[in-house]
Amino acid sequence: MKRSGLTVAVAGATGAVGEEMLSILEERRFPCDEVRCLASERSRGKRLEFRGEQLTVDVLGEDSFDGVDVALFSAGGARSLRFAPAAVRSGAVVVDNSSAFRMDPDTPLVVPEVNPHAIARHRGIIANPNCSTIQMVVVLKPLHDVARILRIVVSTYQSVSGTGKRAMDELARQTTSLLNFQEIERKVYPHRIAFNCLPHIDEFLENGYTKEEMKMVNETRKIMEDDSIAITATTVRVPVFHSHSESVNIETERPLTAKQAREILAEAPGVAVVDNPAASEYPLAIHAAGRDEVFVGRIREDFSVAHGLNMWIVADNLRKGAALNAIQIAEMLLDQ
Amino acid sequence: MKRSGLTVAVAGATGAVGEEMLSILEERRFPCDEVRCLASERSRGKRLEFRGEQLTVDVLGEDSFDGVDVALFSAGGARSLRFAPAAVRSGAVVVDNSSAFRMDPDTPLVVPEVNPHAIARHRGIIANPNCSTIQMVVVLKPLHDVARILRIVVSTYQSVSGTGKRAMDELARQTTSLLNFQEIERKVYPHRIAFNCLPHIDEFLENGYTKEEMKMVNETRKIMEDDSIAITATTVRVPVFHSHSESVNIETERPLTAKQAREILAEAPGVAVVDNPAASEYPLAIHAAGRDEVFVGRIREDFSVAHGLNMWIVADNLRKGAALNAIQIAEMLLDQ
Repeated sequence: MKRSGLTVAVAGATGAVGEEMLSILEERRFPCDEVRCLASERSRGKRLEFRGEQLTVDVLGEDSFDGVDVALFSAGGARSLRFAPAAVRSGAVVVDNSSAFRMDPDTPLVVPEVNPHAIARHRGIIANPNCSTIQMVVVLKPLHDVARILRIVVSTYQSVSGTGKRAMDELARQTTSLLNFQEIERKVYPHRIAFNCLPHIDEFLENGYTKEEMKMVNETRKIMEDDSIAITATTVRVPVFHSHSESVNIETERPLTAKQAREILAEAPGVAVVDNPAASEYPLAIHAAGRDEVFVGRIREDFSVAHGLNMWIVADNLRKGAALNAIQIAEMLLDQ
Repeated sequence: MKRSGLTVAVAGATGAVGEEMLSILEERRFPCDEVRCLASERSRGKRLEFRGEQLTVDVLGEDSFDGVDVALFSAGGARSLRFAPAAVRSGAVVVDNSSAFRMDPDTPLVVPEVNPHAIARHRGIIANPNCSTIQMVVVLKPLHDVARILRIVVSTYQSVSGTGKRAMDELARQTTSLLNFQEIERKVYPHRIAFNCLPHIDEFLENGYTKEEMKMVNETRKIMEDDSIAITATTVRVPVFHSHSESVNIETERPLTAKQAREILAEAPGVAVVDNPAASEYPLAIHAAGRDEVFVGRIREDFSVAHGLNMWIVADNLRKGAALNAIQIAEMLLDQ
């Protein structure tokens, strides 16, 4: 792909991830001359700021992609299924943030720090993984390379921004209502999210797991290119605006001390180790918000198995968990 | 012990657990004629309501226990260590909610649904377990009896009421400040708790775990009377006022389906199964608040091990996790 004068389309530009994409394209000086903001009919004519200019939102359609080099999709699975092929036909490479193509064997599912080589085999679409999966594999891959992970047990503490802007409004409004002793309204989540934890993210499947939980299982194996890793997940929404936190337990084939893990992760791309409990230093959702790194701490040996570690992994789900990872993929396309 | 006309002392009566103890003594018509409210100098003369009357708070001292039959302690470990022996010398039986005596081999550590027989061997003090441990063992013991639990991996989502009233104030004040775009104050927790998750409950130990995490390991083994159970825990404070939630993964020796586990737990004392994901029904902190039962749901087979289950366990930490469990122990003393 050419390395300057690109045309980039952002499908779903008015959403929480779409806006983050615009801001990261600007921040990282992505070499584009034109950015096309696309969204649903509802957002037609809306204006979004980019490099100090006001861009007008167009309606996403099959004819939106003439002359587009890179199309970043974050408009939901149904729209990706419908419009991503049109973008490819127009000659664009699509980086898709929905779950539509992630498990398609012909579509690479990429975290640049973990499996950058997978990008080369794309046929027009590259899938961006689920937010809670991305931050986990960025930390676990370097440990897997050294000690071989046999099993992962993960429980998540996921922020409402992962659901989108309406969910952020819902948390703010419900919280305000409760503090003012007023009735709360529920529109986005099936239960109150303010001052509560919901063990329910995405839809439930026949096997009792949610789609979000199975994404963590299946996507992790695909990205780490190792179907032998046993994984089980419990995904939980918590009353936090930004950043997902994860309690991750791993069992490894070879011994790995907490100290060794810290040393490996200190050198790992995209990872920041924050692990000084004596000074109350460990990763926190409020510290990760707006940051690019995946933070890891509370690294300690798990004495309940022969070779085990516990750790606490936190990242900004809209950035590394979505928009940043997609743009890092686009950046790697430039190098090819 | 006699079954009526008892004198009960509540040490730490003005705290979050102490007040809950008073309300549960009243609610369950505990057969006491007199309740003595004891607290630190700071609370001297404060009034607390009990059965429609105003009780005046006295200062907790070695001479507070003349004529007391049952002393319920929830005034912190240091005060338990200092004053519980005095209460025993005065002829009272102490039910102690602090961690001071829990791991003492001569002190029974009791959850009435799990190991009621242990009460009989008390020498004046019976320890009430840690809140996050109680709710877990109430659910796991019936499963252990059938399938033998080999290993537990637990991550908690603990409410601020477990820290006490000042922490509840802190969450409310910080939340209000943030929603009004004002600076927040930190007094109780080392970091902001509003819209954040803190992987830090109680002090850190040399091995990288917190005391709270090691309580879950050690107390579970003592209460379930099985040191062969391997346990690892990550305990996390979340911005929730009432009830602790827990993501619990177990590995069992014998196979146990989710359906079998649900059937066993439907019959288990003190447990309520809420497990209908299709209707978005699962245990929730806001539903458990003020309730006596331990709620369990999201029960599903863990395909990452030969015989494994995941589940979500929620209970009111001030009630079953503290005050209710202590008073249930006191009730069992009456039967002896």
